[in-house]
Amino acid sequence: MAKAPTVEDVAAHAGVSRQTVSNVLNTPEVVRPATKERVLEAIDALGYRRHAAARRLRLRRSSTIGIRLDPYVGGISGVVLDRFVHAITEHASERGMRMLVYAARDTDEELARLSELWEGSEIDAAIITGTFRDDPRVGHLDAEGLPFVSFGRPWGEDDIADPRHLWVDVDGAAGTRAATQYALGAGDHVTFFGWPEGSGTGDDRERGWQETIRGAGARGGRLTADDSVPRARVAMEVALAAGLETDALVCASDSLAVGALLALADARRVLPVIGFDNTPTAEALGFSSVEQRPEDVATAVLELLMGPTGDVVAPRRLEAGSAHALITPELVVR
Amino acid sequence: MAKAPTVEDVAAHAGVSRQTVSNVLNTPEVVRPATKERVLEAIDALGYRRHAAARRLRLRRSSTIGIRLDPYVGGISGVVLDRFVHAITEHASERGMRMLVYAARDTDEELARLSELWEGSEIDAAIITGTFRDDPRVGHLDAEGLPFVSFGRPWGEDDIADPRHLWVDVDGAAGTRAATQYALGAGDHVTFFGWPEGSGTGDDRERGWQETIRGAGARGGRLTADDSVPRARVAMEVALAAGLETDALVCASDSLAVGALLALADARRVLPVIGFDNTPTAEALGFSSVEQRPEDVATAVLELLMGPTGDVVAPRRLEAGSAHALITPELVVR
Repeated sequence: MAKAPTVEDVAAHAGVSRQTVSNVLNTPEVVRPATKERVLEAIDALGYRRHAAARRLRLRRSSTIGIRLDPYVGGISGVVLDRFVHAITEHASERGMRMLVYAARDTDEELARLSELWEGSEIDAAIITGTFRDDPRVGHLDAEGLPFVSFGRPWGEDDIADPRHLWVDVDGAAGTRAATQYALGAGDHVTFFGWPEGSGTGDDRERGWQETIRGAGARGGRLTADDSVPRARVAMEVALAAGLETDALVCASDSLAVGALLALADARRVLPVIGFDNTPTAEALGFSSVEQRPEDVATAVLELLMGPTGDVVAPRRLEAGSAHALITPELVVR
Repeated sequence: MAKAPTVEDVAAHAGVSRQTVSNVLNTPEVVRPATKERVLEAIDALGYRRHAAARRLRLRRSSTIGIRLDPYVGGISGVVLDRFVHAITEHASERGMRMLVYAARDTDEELARLSELWEGSEIDAAIITGTFRDDPRVGHLDAEGLPFVSFGRPWGEDDIADPRHLWVDVDGAAGTRAATQYALGAGDHVTFFGWPEGSGTGDDRERGWQETIRGAGARGGRLTADDSVPRARVAMEVALAAGLETDALVCASDSLAVGALLALADARRVLPVIGFDNTPTAEALGFSSVEQRPEDVATAVLELLMGPTGDVVAPRRLEAGSAHALITPELVVR
């Protein structure tokens, strides 16, 4: 295959300077119409890949990554995403990149904002969070050609390994495996306290507990409540009143863990309770919790987006195996 | 006084188009050196206020406000600043402005980053937080001509009312007045649990308690601990062991409140304990706390920066009385 035509080839063909070609690609309004026409004809004649070049030039210009900040909704686990945003801001600064945060009420508005930022050359890349299976953002951003990395896995079993899909996620099952292993030190009956509705995240966390008690030949049942302290407290009170006997509790979140601890305190019962997210509340109350390591997620996201040392956005097509990272969470014992 | 020369006057004098003058001011690299020289001579000859105009042009271009995001340091009160950043992002989006977040390890680095963003026309204005008396950022940003609003009062008694100083702060004393008033419902002995070192914020919060118990002819002493749950717990244990008798506790933070509650639970004592910051931890544990209303701080900051309806950065010189806002916090009773 012949060498792909460069900006220099286009400039020579059109009889203009390299700078004029750049101007046509980036700030066409400063170029005289006749000159612009000549450059565009040269681009067509040579088959110059104008779009990719324009994008690269844009990339050099904004050095900015966009990320959505959801409205604050309270609850004790929101801090995980905020820690991620803090860390990504810090690491992006170290790499000479800026972070642009924007608000959006829903996915449609998020996509409209991203398109606007991308079309206006205000961002080079995006980070999406709170992903879900068949997330419409994936197809939209692919179609726009906007490089992005997702915190979470919006793809299914069939295409999760596609090297064009850049994602970082936390291995929830590994977290509850560590928590359950630790809990088994208190006895061979370990209860899992999860959420009622099957969610990807919830199922993942339950699986780690399930596999560990099976592997150890231990026992244990499931309790569920919505992710709120008062509801978790009531669910635990009901379970205790019904005669729940268990040696420890492994919870899908710190909210569930706090609710359980309050119910246990009322009943003057003491049990190891292990939370998930290692929030400031877990630290304040002194219970063990699984730490998602959002700072490591941030580092991995930037490495996928920019390469281990690069200072520009890497091509989306990476070698297989280097397009995603699964962060192993860590149990913080207190 | 004669009418100030405009871009059109400069263009006519130099014999170039208005667009060329704009290019010289904004993207000089696209203008031929001889043309640039001619425009700069016209600017000098007419006494055109090049800098202010360039700034206005820049303002229209970036529509971006910069704010520093500190590294995450844990603790339960960090959420107040994160809520502020979420809210300002949301309100800025509604006004068509973007938020650029950046990291900095210290004030010098923060100022270096801000200067770089401002010189590069990447921001129109800045928001500074975590201010302190004689904060060096004030003089630096004034000298650079970068419009900014501070969350906090970096000025002293003598110049706090200067209409050029745009600030928003939370009235801490009003918060502890409300908390103490409520606590007096439990009895006429209300203890204040504050920080050992005199800080502007801490003194302000203590003053609200002090004024309220004096006004009510009530009694009460002071307890202190560093802002950490374990230290607050130990301080409270020591006080209880020493025979502390009080009807309620008003705390300078939720961390102090949690420490006090843990010590009281160990001692099987029940007292009203009122925190400050209304963190998710206060909500989870169900204790009353003073809410700083960071969303209202964000609204006020944007109004000072942009005017109540404007979509561009307002001039720094506003009418007296409209240059600052003191937000009254709200006691959330649980």
